[in-house]
Amino acid sequence: MAVLDRQHYIESLPASKRLADATPLAVTDATSMSEIDDYLVSRHDDFEADLCELLRIPSISADSAHADDVRRAANWVHDHLQALGLTTELIETAGHPLVFAQSEQIPGKPTALVYGHYDVQPPDPLDEWVSPPFEPTVRDGNIYARGATDDKGQMLTHIKSAEAWMKTVGQLPLNVKYLIEGEEEVGSQSLGTFLTEHAARLACDCVVISDTCQFGPGRPAITYGLRGIAYYELLLKGPQQDLHSGSFGGAITNPANVLARLLAEIVDGEGRVQLPGFYDAVVPLTPREREGYQAMAFDDEGFLAQVGVDGAIGESGYSTLERRWARPSYDINGLWSGYQGEGAKTVLPARAGAKFSFRLVPNQTPEQVTAALREFLEPRLPPGITMELKDFHGSPGVLVSLESPYIEAAASAIEHGFGTAPLYIREGGSIPIVTSFAEHLGADVLLLGWGLSDDNTHSPNEKFCLADFHRGTKASAQLWAELAKICG
Amino acid sequence: MAVLDRQHYIESLPASKRLADATPLAVTDATSMSEIDDYLVSRHDDFEADLCELLRIPSISADSAHADDVRRAANWVHDHLQALGLTTELIETAGHPLVFAQSEQIPGKPTALVYGHYDVQPPDPLDEWVSPPFEPTVRDGNIYARGATDDKGQMLTHIKSAEAWMKTVGQLPLNVKYLIEGEEEVGSQSLGTFLTEHAARLACDCVVISDTCQFGPGRPAITYGLRGIAYYELLLKGPQQDLHSGSFGGAITNPANVLARLLAEIVDGEGRVQLPGFYDAVVPLTPREREGYQAMAFDDEGFLAQVGVDGAIGESGYSTLERRWARPSYDINGLWSGYQGEGAKTVLPARAGAKFSFRLVPNQTPEQVTAALREFLEPRLPPGITMELKDFHGSPGVLVSLESPYIEAAASAIEHGFGTAPLYIREGGSIPIVTSFAEHLGADVLLLGWGLSDDNTHSPNEKFCLADFHRGTKASAQLWAELAKICG
Repeated sequence: MAVLDRQHYIESLPASKRLADATPLAVTDATSMSEIDDYLVSRHDDFEADLCELLRIPSISADSAHADDVRRAANWVHDHLQALGLTTELIETAGHPLVFAQSEQIPGKPTALVYGHYDVQPPDPLDEWVSPPFEPTVRDGNIYARGATDDKGQMLTHIKSAEAWMKTVGQLPLNVKYLIEGEEEVGSQSLGTFLTEHAARLACDCVVISDTCQFGPGRPAITYGLRGIAYYELLLKGPQQDLHSGSFGGAITNPANVLARLLAEIVDGEGRVQLPGFYDAVVPLTPREREGYQAMAFDDEGFLAQVGVDGAIGESGYSTLERRWARPSYDINGLWSGYQGEGAKTVLPARAGAKFSFRLVPNQTPEQVTAALREFLEPRLPPGITMELKDFHGSPGVLVSLESPYIEAAASAIEHGFGTAPLYIREGGSIPIVTSFAEHLGADVLLLGWGLSDDNTHSPNEKFCLADFHRGTKASAQLWAELAKICG
Repeated sequence: MAVLDRQHYIESLPASKRLADATPLAVTDATSMSEIDDYLVSRHDDFEADLCELLRIPSISADSAHADDVRRAANWVHDHLQALGLTTELIETAGHPLVFAQSEQIPGKPTALVYGHYDVQPPDPLDEWVSPPFEPTVRDGNIYARGATDDKGQMLTHIKSAEAWMKTVGQLPLNVKYLIEGEEEVGSQSLGTFLTEHAARLACDCVVISDTCQFGPGRPAITYGLRGIAYYELLLKGPQQDLHSGSFGGAITNPANVLARLLAEIVDGEGRVQLPGFYDAVVPLTPREREGYQAMAFDDEGFLAQVGVDGAIGESGYSTLERRWARPSYDINGLWSGYQGEGAKTVLPARAGAKFSFRLVPNQTPEQVTAALREFLEPRLPPGITMELKDFHGSPGVLVSLESPYIEAAASAIEHGFGTAPLYIREGGSIPIVTSFAEHLGADVLLLGWGLSDDNTHSPNEKFCLADFHRGTKASAQLWAELAKICG
């Protein structure tokens, strides 16, 4: 399908919907929504053709050989948004460009910022793809291509939903901004800089992101919380060089022995972190959340089988989903000391090191954890050991209140689009850009994932369910209506 | 000095000392000892020349390019012993040859087995040597060369002491066997095989080894105890592959966390190993030992400064020397898990491993420790973790009773040679061959170290104090007389 330009749009609109000026429309009525839904259905094939066009561009941000392709994808998105009649700008950065767009200002209406990314992961290993990564292919109702779900397909739903409004109603019922970047797969550095310097330009009431997953097939979800992280490297230094464990063992403090003790003492037998005040700021799970998680009937056995274990331990008193989503955790990420080769070497090591991290939940902050960690470790250091603690950049968790009107709006929209009410889930990992949005914009972030956990993001044979592509677009179109009901 | 042959010896002996047959001599009298001492003094220069000759042979057992040199050193020792009038044999092995020799049998007299080695460590790094490693050079009363103290110089004292007896008294006052090997620096494999297969040939009442150190300059010592060792590798396996610590942290058992806890729980805050029954077999320090160690006025601060620390922890209630020599210890020798590179990687590792060992004291055995370790670890393994415990070959400690007549004989000999009574010390490491001798021959092992702790064994600028070379030879000559007084 050819890219539509603004003139084409205006001419294609029914006369009644053509906008003579920027006067706000009245609140959308049921008739309009039905018309929008009909439009979406009528354009299924075209939308898929557009998605294929975008997927054919190998916009691999990590590979400088593909810099032109990355720019081509940026232009594609930019032109597509421009063709909808939005005010657009291709913002140059030190890296790949940002695509920015905004609808005509409607006073008194809320503003939604759509975030997405047009760049993709490298496709290696190529020989594991059933069909080539940049030749989109449909099999069993799924479209297979690099970027299908992450994030071209999901991101496009929010552009196509705007198209439906423009082509039927003639304008969006609220203020929508788009910020689509090309460095998500390589760390979002340019976006971070832009956010810091131009937060005012991105001012909004809520951020809409579709770059996550449903809870399962046919079980759409709103991800309303993310865990944060505080990551450290601890280096213990003992004797100035490795010593003979025979001549010195028992009489010189062994930094590896001390490291094991310190790392072990950070957590108790019940899985509770022992740093002073560690749980003070933790927002407890509400009864609504606990009941909601329980109702999801999470398959614990399947979860364990998936990673190849026959049991697990965790914080006492919490379910698997609660442990993953809503409780802080402590994991050693790396360990090293002394001799790691084959056989036996009788060395008392000079040094021992570890990387470890805490997954944080709202309202814990990395700064509080760092202070508590130092307070915990320093008095425990025995004679003969010095400590170096490296504090890597951390981030707090994110939690959107389930009472938020934006969450309610998204829930209604999803129910409309998917035919079933969404589940309210969290994610155990952190998404740095989401934290940045929450911090810089002070806006609720709506993570509306249309993907599935087996979509092979970052792996060969990435896919996206086409039915979910269309359901997501329908939900997005409805979302604009639902959000428009909220006072801006 | 040219190597003496047997005929030369006989001709050089005073007529009164020439042996017409193998008839045993009467017990050595004071006159004989004085004559022997005079002989030793008169031959100082020749002994040093002989030592230099042996040191010039680069008998590096680890380097196959020096195989001929290693054999040349074996031949040198063999011919030297043969020239003394001993029955000798160059025993071929799968590796470097063993030199075996024995004096003529004197019924009713004890048998001493001298053990030593003619091979040396590689000399690298060469550019750190002040004088070349195989060009023996005297500076400040020390002879500098690879092998000077380890073990050519020390070993030679026991050959030169025999020469003194042969050249003055005409025979040794007891039965002496020599077993000088060429693979000590590469694991003594051939000797181990020989010991297993030919223990009867090596039958003896005591083993004499000079391959250790004095307690300090002018403080000769008898090393009457060695610690043993039990060495393990513990591998914990969790999920089948590394997991994302965000999505899984808190809900899947982390093998690195478990490893830290297990390793920490092996020892308590007082430095006491927690394995069941671990201390049951430990031979406690006697009041004589504790008083002896205390009287040595060990320089704790100097010891700590030497390794570059300002304090240390160890088992409560014991001094530094007691901790090093006579108490078991527990050291982590190696640790590994997850991500060890630069920066932060949020991984929940699939595996975590450690090497750790216990230094054992008599009468602990590695077998008992292994059983106790399994008993300790297995019930502590949480769900989601499996364990693989590798048991490396260990060895028990060695302890010669201070009441042993051989110890008393050695003490008298040292006092004669060095002009001061020896200290009774132990060594924190194990010397595998000593353990083998104790096990296979059931003989008391006399570790009579003439070296000093700063002799740079295995390092550039290895040295041996020439005065100690001569004192050691004098002590050795006296030792034959002292041992001869004990009923064989």
